[in-house]
Amino acid sequence: MSAEAKVSVASLPIALDAAGGDNGVAPNVEGAVLAARAGVSVLLVGERVALHAELGKYPGSAALPLEIVDAPDVIGMDEHAAGVRSRSGASINVCTRLVKDGRAAAAVSMGHSGATMASALLTFGRIKGVERPAILTHLPARGGMTTLLDAGANADVKASSYAQWARLATVYLKVLEDHDNPTVGLLSIGEEDHKGSALVIEAHALLRALHGKGINFHGNVEGRDIFLGTTDIVVTDGFTGNVVLKLAEGEARVMFGWIRDALNSGLKSRLGGLLVRGSLRGLADRMDPSTYGASILIGVRGLAFIGHGSANATAVKNALLRASRAHEGKLLPRLEVAFGEGAAPLVGTEA
Amino acid sequence: MSAEAKVSVASLPIALDAAGGDNGVAPNVEGAVLAARAGVSVLLVGERVALHAELGKYPGSAALPLEIVDAPDVIGMDEHAAGVRSRSGASINVCTRLVKDGRAAAAVSMGHSGATMASALLTFGRIKGVERPAILTHLPARGGMTTLLDAGANADVKASSYAQWARLATVYLKVLEDHDNPTVGLLSIGEEDHKGSALVIEAHALLRALHGKGINFHGNVEGRDIFLGTTDIVVTDGFTGNVVLKLAEGEARVMFGWIRDALNSGLKSRLGGLLVRGSLRGLADRMDPSTYGASILIGVRGLAFIGHGSANATAVKNALLRASRAHEGKLLPRLEVAFGEGAAPLVGTEA
Repeated sequence: MSAEAKVSVASLPIALDAAGGDNGVAPNVEGAVLAARAGVSVLLVGERVALHAELGKYPGSAALPLEIVDAPDVIGMDEHAAGVRSRSGASINVCTRLVKDGRAAAAVSMGHSGATMASALLTFGRIKGVERPAILTHLPARGGMTTLLDAGANADVKASSYAQWARLATVYLKVLEDHDNPTVGLLSIGEEDHKGSALVIEAHALLRALHGKGINFHGNVEGRDIFLGTTDIVVTDGFTGNVVLKLAEGEARVMFGWIRDALNSGLKSRLGGLLVRGSLRGLADRMDPSTYGASILIGVRGLAFIGHGSANATAVKNALLRASRAHEGKLLPRLEVAFGEGAAPLVGTEA
Repeated sequence: MSAEAKVSVASLPIALDAAGGDNGVAPNVEGAVLAARAGVSVLLVGERVALHAELGKYPGSAALPLEIVDAPDVIGMDEHAAGVRSRSGASINVCTRLVKDGRAAAAVSMGHSGATMASALLTFGRIKGVERPAILTHLPARGGMTTLLDAGANADVKASSYAQWARLATVYLKVLEDHDNPTVGLLSIGEEDHKGSALVIEAHALLRALHGKGINFHGNVEGRDIFLGTTDIVVTDGFTGNVVLKLAEGEARVMFGWIRDALNSGLKSRLGGLLVRGSLRGLADRMDPSTYGASILIGVRGLAFIGHGSANATAVKNALLRASRAHEGKLLPRLEVAFGEGAAPLVGTEA
């Protein structure tokens, strides 16, 4: 590949659904400004006038690699994802089309997750060999983080999907985290091979057969292993994965509330609380979902990142940086190679 | 009922599988001594000589309502649960037989959970109208605790089981926690009625139809609601429930480790740590599974409680107290009434 080609690849902007999310344009525009200052070009997709006004609050933003793309419509957080099919002017559809047309490297949205998934799937299609795209996300863990998928795209799955997701996540960690040979655990209710639901036992056999063929299969892991960081990747169905993700967030939130209460109970604790506040803040940051910014919808033929509706500017910025790294690391072509000719067949893919 | 009958019911002892668990007889005997001091009679079931020796360490234990029942065999933590069928002298089988024969009020074991479930199911049978017994457990939550089932007895389930479990748990909370009309949430991946796997959507319809008929159905809840305490009861399949339970324990454990590290990072934090230690210990106790002692296997025709293999004496004691309260509160007859003639039919039970 020529030097020009490389430069042009790296300079392709990220399309941000600037209207998406619980808090509207403000955190999106601020996140885009932060990302642009860090060298990432961004297309702000949304209602032109509102975006101009918001952008005007940042002195010097005119000099940043930011551009507004008008999209008059937005799919609200409480609307049906099916709206994606008919509303071509909706900001998320404009984002995915920019990617499809080669004018943007990736689509990023903090808006309606179902709509983002639907838009990406309809516009990009699936990578050949991938039956069902999955949401890949990260959870904090002892020693770093655990990569979990599917975090909610597929409530009902087939055994073959687990193997495909394991392979997709393996390539993802190689590209995004420089992880050479990440380990894969299958979430179950016992470490022994025969433990689990009928579906998980079937998936176990498929993953076992693929060990060493693009997947470094560790075996079954249990709920506790996600935070213990037993494996780099944990594969599970989208129902369990979504419960895991939301439980983990809920537990952290409630525990922090209890810690706060404990540090306010009496003079001694309050004094101690002042002294430990700084070091506990590091822990809070570690548990904060905005650290990773967004989850990727993996398995579609285009880059799409889906964030929390409540995302703040830091989360938006981190999502944009992550999307840019995925593009620069050629994640998509590398995923296609992993599923292309010459790749080890995924046993049972046709099942 | 006569006063004598009441006394005889209350004085029926609890059969403790004193050989079960990761740490052998020591925590079991200590827990039994603590429970006996609190007024609960206990049959210590296990190898007679070893139990005598252990009991001898507690001065005055001869005066307590403790009795040893010899059981030469024990099903080890790493053996197959199927062993229960042939090994009639195994401590857990002796415990459940004591209950079946009317010589004990309940069986309690910190040993092999699969073996305990199998032994209880084989010896007691199921309550009429209950297809699959479930493990009912408690998790700490904002404002108290959340009761979760199934925590791992059934990896594969039918929609009808959710409704049966909701009813069982409702009666359980009425008897054990004086809870008048506990709310029931169905664990799913969205609050809307149509969100979830095909199975969960079917279960939702059944629960909705039973609202007001012995079940106070709130609707779907998500992973985060378990710690937020949105409903008193959360019903889910045994695969998801087991993942939830172990994830919650693992996250709490890892977070406490990080808190400990944070309170040891630098002089200022260390000093503050000394001041807040006391109030943080209250939080640690709250997250400690030994508070509840054990989970009940609900739906069988006898009382069986299953604890953590790593249970300490406090957990054993609390399990024994809980078992005694379940018996005194006539949990089993009340569960049978809830499923007996005159009870609202559980739609789809025959499905």
